[in-house]
Amino acid sequence: MGPQVSDELAYEPLEVLLDELAEYIAIPSVSRSATTETMREAAAWVARQLEFAGGRVVETDGFPLVRADWLNAPGAPTILVYGHYDVQPTGSRDEWDTDPFEMTVDGDVVRGRGVTDDKGPVFIVLKLVQAFIAQRGGLPLNVKFLIEGEEEIGSPSLPSYVRANAEELAADLVISADGAQWRPSEPSLSTASKGLVTLDIVANGANSDLHSGRFGGTVANPVHALSTILASLHDDNGGVAVDGFYDGVDDIDDVRRAQIAAVPFDDAEYMASLGVSELFGEKGLSTLERLWERPTLEITGVTGGGKYSVIPHVATGHIAARLVGRQDPEGVVSAIERHVKGLVLPGIEVEINVDQARVPAYRIDADHPAIRAATAALNHVYPGEDVLLAVIAGTLPATTLFEEVTGAKTLFFSFSTADENLHAPNEFLRTKRIPEGLRAWEQLWTLLASGPHALVPNHVMTGATR
Amino acid sequence: MGPQVSDELAYEPLEVLLDELAEYIAIPSVSRSATTETMREAAAWVARQLEFAGGRVVETDGFPLVRADWLNAPGAPTILVYGHYDVQPTGSRDEWDTDPFEMTVDGDVVRGRGVTDDKGPVFIVLKLVQAFIAQRGGLPLNVKFLIEGEEEIGSPSLPSYVRANAEELAADLVISADGAQWRPSEPSLSTASKGLVTLDIVANGANSDLHSGRFGGTVANPVHALSTILASLHDDNGGVAVDGFYDGVDDIDDVRRAQIAAVPFDDAEYMASLGVSELFGEKGLSTLERLWERPTLEITGVTGGGKYSVIPHVATGHIAARLVGRQDPEGVVSAIERHVKGLVLPGIEVEINVDQARVPAYRIDADHPAIRAATAALNHVYPGEDVLLAVIAGTLPATTLFEEVTGAKTLFFSFSTADENLHAPNEFLRTKRIPEGLRAWEQLWTLLASGPHALVPNHVMTGATR
Repeated sequence: MGPQVSDELAYEPLEVLLDELAEYIAIPSVSRSATTETMREAAAWVARQLEFAGGRVVETDGFPLVRADWLNAPGAPTILVYGHYDVQPTGSRDEWDTDPFEMTVDGDVVRGRGVTDDKGPVFIVLKLVQAFIAQRGGLPLNVKFLIEGEEEIGSPSLPSYVRANAEELAADLVISADGAQWRPSEPSLSTASKGLVTLDIVANGANSDLHSGRFGGTVANPVHALSTILASLHDDNGGVAVDGFYDGVDDIDDVRRAQIAAVPFDDAEYMASLGVSELFGEKGLSTLERLWERPTLEITGVTGGGKYSVIPHVATGHIAARLVGRQDPEGVVSAIERHVKGLVLPGIEVEINVDQARVPAYRIDADHPAIRAATAALNHVYPGEDVLLAVIAGTLPATTLFEEVTGAKTLFFSFSTADENLHAPNEFLRTKRIPEGLRAWEQLWTLLASGPHALVPNHVMTGATR
Repeated sequence: MGPQVSDELAYEPLEVLLDELAEYIAIPSVSRSATTETMREAAAWVARQLEFAGGRVVETDGFPLVRADWLNAPGAPTILVYGHYDVQPTGSRDEWDTDPFEMTVDGDVVRGRGVTDDKGPVFIVLKLVQAFIAQRGGLPLNVKFLIEGEEEIGSPSLPSYVRANAEELAADLVISADGAQWRPSEPSLSTASKGLVTLDIVANGANSDLHSGRFGGTVANPVHALSTILASLHDDNGGVAVDGFYDGVDDIDDVRRAQIAAVPFDDAEYMASLGVSELFGEKGLSTLERLWERPTLEITGVTGGGKYSVIPHVATGHIAARLVGRQDPEGVVSAIERHVKGLVLPGIEVEINVDQARVPAYRIDADHPAIRAATAALNHVYPGEDVLLAVIAGTLPATTLFEEVTGAKTLFFSFSTADENLHAPNEFLRTKRIPEGLRAWEQLWTLLASGPHALVPNHVMTGATR
């Protein structure tokens, strides 16, 4: 933590903050399985925190979202704060050391479902704005809030809501409280996230499962055919062997290569943490270069038949392509379709079913004022530590949506860390991230409002106080 | 049905037989799920039918089996009748037109679980021996009965029972009431069945499923590796590409090729029945040659990950190899192991888990007295129709077991037909198979006892009346 400066905000003691966060964690807002009633309860909890800004629960076709606007800083830039109040399923309770909905302090961390994804990081912003209002009577910026309840199920209702309310949501910058810092050893900012298309490849054979003896050798086996298809997607060197897949992917230039090489990263430690004897991927590239700068085509699942003697009538492979640079999701889908159609598979009919969501890669320039301000804010909280510029190798569809609809870039500014068991049992948050996050958001907003890193306000203010 | 000859047995009217069969079908002896009590009830039903021969329920490590011996034909050959009283699960009751355990007459067929596999075919033998005893005061041969209750779950208790009672079970011939005739259009006998080894190929990667974005491109994906392994098992021409797999497989000679070519078989009709646009298998061989004379290596199932964004930490392929000729099950396993070990799969650990049962192919010579007697018996019941010599492309482990332990060959003599929904919903039996079967078994036993096709009795009689 940086030096305490007299004009900084004062926050409630950590114990008080944790008691309040525990209340929020206790609402089991698991978007995959909760009732609408439970989801509304969580949304209402957030809306109450934003009462001073007209916080309200807004119904959608799915679970409600929370909206609020504080637009009383004329001439100042406008930001949109994004986050989510829904959480992942707990999985088997047996794998948790404590009740996932009863937040528990354990040494330097708090444990519970949602503490780091994304209730804890959103909670930090809620407490920040309350401190500003209480101690300063207002915020340094105009701030809009959009906290959704469907992030963990792919945000199905978000696009239509954002498109229908584009003007109301207009902002100079989106700041996402979702999206974790890369690792605990140093502060980092992400300047890119990967795009995503997912699809299923289905190999169909006979009209029903056939006895593997009484029909074996006479008809094509869909699992054989699927294996041939899946094996053909990569070359022996770990590259994707689909013609046209790499269209729009630039070679890593020397500057970027040097930047990445300067990031301390230990392959041996990484291997040990994953329990593998060897890393694997495109030849001639370092692990971080592959992870951050290169697109991938992973088979995320495969299914067909079982442990009984049949020639299955159908076999399915699930594919997830993570995109970078200017890769066009439609172009990637077409390339995969052309590749599969080019294979000779007698007696098998292949279908390719592409999922609806097609997310291009996202990037914010390292020179963007938001990155410069965020770097300065982190430098203030973590003095003497270099801020790494990392990449979120996952996909955050909301960022692309906001850019497409409102033109605003997104800054990821989360005080979650990627190793905190997101989506897994025993999800935790390093407790110190709460005071660090409060101070960092405070600095960030102050820096974005005025001074050398200030945003240039472009957007007409809209909303309640217009 | 052949001409009624005055010295043939008289059987009860079909209605009476069907009423009694319905009683047997009503006992839901599903070996995969029934209680031991239900299984004992079915065994006891069979044992009561064999009371005159000391029919008894014999406990094993699993479900009981039924044993009986009628050994009062000194100097005559001895046969062992094999069958099973257990049945397959019904699957979803919704897919049945009638209650599977309430046998229903529907036009020319009776429907119910077990009518054709194997309660109906065993019932025919029970009624035959009762008619012999009632009308002739004895059987033309010495007959031992072994009706097991675990056939549909792989006969786990049979090997130890047979090995422990080898002398008691000694016979000149085993006749199996299990194993269906090939198709309904003409009578057939099977002179061979395929062997079987099954195994799982398991590709292991990291110590847990990994987010496909946050780890993609850095580690090997077990589903990619498994697909590569599975795709490598076959060549483009449908042949098995595993070095050594075909050891012990002879080329099909001209005589056999001519025999098979003489069997009427319509590829187009077969394709239509399976709903495929093309057949597939080793180049240069006919469909029947591939089905009857060639070994196969089918992937019966594959599993790993799912439709969610992970790099699965494990992927598994299930393999069933059907063997012919002198293929050695152990040799086939070794060949597959060598093949897989020869593949370069960086970052992946591959396990091969071989299932316990390793069944070599079975064959009975077409000139064996049993085949000649059975052909004559079928000619008697189906005058003017050629008896086809077919192959059971499935596997009947009991045959190999009996040959190994007692030296006796097995004749498959079932009045089930392979299209009667064995293991499927709406299992049925052509009702006329009951009187046809009774007359055919009667002829068979008469012919095996004396005349040109008689068995030469080699076995010292053992058992109760020794």
